[in-house]
Amino acid sequence: MERTLAADAHDKIGEVIEVSAWVHRIRNLGGVVFVILRDRSGQIQAVTDGEFPVSVESVVRLRGTVRASEKAPGGVEISVEHFDVLAEAASDLPVAVNQDPGSLALETILDNRMISLRNPKILSIFRLQATCVKAFGDFFRGEGFTEIKSSKIIGGGSEGGTNLFSMDYFGTTAYLAQSPQLYKQAMVSSGLERVFEIGHAYRAEKHETPRHINEYVSLDIEMGFIESEKPLMEIERRFMAYLFETVRRDNEADLEAWGADVPDPESCASIPIISHEEAKSIVKQRTGRRALEINPEAERELCDWAQEEHGIAMIFINEFPRRKRPFYTYPLGQKTMSFDLLFRGLEITTGGRRINDYSMLMEALPKFGMKAGELGAYEDIFKYGCPPHGGFAIGLERITQKILGLANIKEATLFPRDRKRVSP
Amino acid sequence: MERTLAADAHDKIGEVIEVSAWVHRIRNLGGVVFVILRDRSGQIQAVTDGEFPVSVESVVRLRGTVRASEKAPGGVEISVEHFDVLAEAASDLPVAVNQDPGSLALETILDNRMISLRNPKILSIFRLQATCVKAFGDFFRGEGFTEIKSSKIIGGGSEGGTNLFSMDYFGTTAYLAQSPQLYKQAMVSSGLERVFEIGHAYRAEKHETPRHINEYVSLDIEMGFIESEKPLMEIERRFMAYLFETVRRDNEADLEAWGADVPDPESCASIPIISHEEAKSIVKQRTGRRALEINPEAERELCDWAQEEHGIAMIFINEFPRRKRPFYTYPLGQKTMSFDLLFRGLEITTGGRRINDYSMLMEALPKFGMKAGELGAYEDIFKYGCPPHGGFAIGLERITQKILGLANIKEATLFPRDRKRVSP
Repeated sequence: MERTLAADAHDKIGEVIEVSAWVHRIRNLGGVVFVILRDRSGQIQAVTDGEFPVSVESVVRLRGTVRASEKAPGGVEISVEHFDVLAEAASDLPVAVNQDPGSLALETILDNRMISLRNPKILSIFRLQATCVKAFGDFFRGEGFTEIKSSKIIGGGSEGGTNLFSMDYFGTTAYLAQSPQLYKQAMVSSGLERVFEIGHAYRAEKHETPRHINEYVSLDIEMGFIESEKPLMEIERRFMAYLFETVRRDNEADLEAWGADVPDPESCASIPIISHEEAKSIVKQRTGRRALEINPEAERELCDWAQEEHGIAMIFINEFPRRKRPFYTYPLGQKTMSFDLLFRGLEITTGGRRINDYSMLMEALPKFGMKAGELGAYEDIFKYGCPPHGGFAIGLERITQKILGLANIKEATLFPRDRKRVSP
Repeated sequence: MERTLAADAHDKIGEVIEVSAWVHRIRNLGGVVFVILRDRSGQIQAVTDGEFPVSVESVVRLRGTVRASEKAPGGVEISVEHFDVLAEAASDLPVAVNQDPGSLALETILDNRMISLRNPKILSIFRLQATCVKAFGDFFRGEGFTEIKSSKIIGGGSEGGTNLFSMDYFGTTAYLAQSPQLYKQAMVSSGLERVFEIGHAYRAEKHETPRHINEYVSLDIEMGFIESEKPLMEIERRFMAYLFETVRRDNEADLEAWGADVPDPESCASIPIISHEEAKSIVKQRTGRRALEINPEAERELCDWAQEEHGIAMIFINEFPRRKRPFYTYPLGQKTMSFDLLFRGLEITTGGRRINDYSMLMEALPKFGMKAGELGAYEDIFKYGCPPHGGFAIGLERITQKILGLANIKEATLFPRDRKRVSP
């Protein structure tokens, strides 16, 4: 008999169907047993007045007639005629799957990741995350971008060389890439002009904060023939609108599970662009304290300001000082053609125009304690004709975290890696 | 003035347009200079009877009137009125961009990767590869699969622990994942049921062959509620047909650049399925030698046989002996519910049903020199109710290599990593 998904049962009232699912919950009410079954499509109730000697979280294949039932979730239930246990669950579940995970400590959730992921509310995070990945690819392909896959094992650092994980590579030392920066610039210069990459990035940073993980998924783009950071902010503005529209359409239930919503896609047209200088004075005005840099508190203030003044909790900050940006950032006097995008109090994007002129790059290196030749083949990109270009990267886990309002970025990571955690 | 792409110029005969592009080739024919320009859309000829003191591979912005020209590539050319050099190329190009790369040694191509990628024939490999990635995601999303991103840094080995790259992880030793095997099984069990991942996989294997690289992109799927390897082969058969159809539609020029074609999508219905035993006897029949295993020569013979007998150079081999498969493979007596897919003489997929029963897994471990507890949280997946399931992985670079008929897998890798190469 063909399997019916829980979500499709309401079209089959009066028919005998077979479902294959996890046993989510069992209630025995004086001889009548109500079983909530869970599959990838959702949940459905089954009812039997016989025995149901099955442990919660076991996987069953169950056959029965679909009946309308006002009290059942989804408005239908299955009157059980037969069932087999496909896989029995041990009874010592380390974390409850069928309760709100709000009462569980984050460490408990992560220590028992294989089971905690079964919790529908927790699992909904990753359905939404999958939509973010899809929307990113679809949007940028639609804008003429080509997807690339660059190496994550590198001979030297891409952003100045600090905070790199080192590894043994056939007897020599190699590193895990902090970003695909060099490679995406190479691919603009290769003639693809517009490229994107969805891939892991690694930062050997020791700090323990709700916004940092040591391995994350970076949604990177790079595009040629732009002469400032402005077209980058414009294309990201349109991407964010597209993302919010897609999430609203495809992830209604996941948003609901967290009591969350995305900003109105149309309001992305109102995301303000302010300079780093202006940002600091807004923060000073609101907090009464001089802001030396845009720290996490300042990021929250700026998003609050944007919400109040522009109706959306997002803000572009551009014209960062040169000393705060990597060597490859295109200078504008003492400032740079660079930007961040903050969303609901968190930086989710860093980007900017890059230096494309070979002699300008050679002049820039010593200012950052580097010297010509040190960057190896990277320098060839510019030596042999590279158009003006720039790009940005969005942190996948950060955007997931902020859409759903999660307290810690690790909640938005399937198998997070931090200073102490390298499993499961 | 707005930029016009080379490919769009034929719609603008008589108009003044501006193109931004690399200088691909310059021919000076007695005072008339013909310049071939190259951008992401293709090539176009520009003509001037003035000076054109620009080096090949420089990036220019050029304005002029579009004229029909039978002799020009694409049937139109631009009569130059003005041009600026956006980025000048040094004149000591390490490899020629505008010549067929066939005469270049692979090592020369890879040593000069930043420039060799500009060669239109070489770059076409990666346009086609991007289509493979897109087709994989589109197809499996359409079949109800959810995309996941799992960690590549792991505490222990996923396939028995050999050939792992080790790294320093905050003072402890961690490893780079050989495959997302454990994680995709965890995500079937989480309730997503059907998952796919596009991600890097790492093998610290020392051998140097045209089919191995140490870092590759694995196109992985895993699906629940299947009870043998057959549904996996069926869904892969349909995916291959979809892939070939998509590549034919979207990458006509790239296939042409390599004189390549994909098999007829409809012929995927004819891909034969033969057992490992049968495969060995076919090889014996054809070569006159007893095949102890399906080695590279045998893989070529089997694909030739499939082409001759079934009209397509692809073949599924199933029922591998248990000792040739990892511990998690579902046993069938001394054989297993596992399969490989060979394409044009190369294994491009390994897959199979996995053990989902906790006690069966515990019994299997000692046969593979492992013991209960050794797999840590992985065991929880099965202890608490895991449906029957299986999956497979396709090597992205291998499928790219075989579609285009490339001699070495490194040609199908943007920045390949082998025993000696860790840059660029």
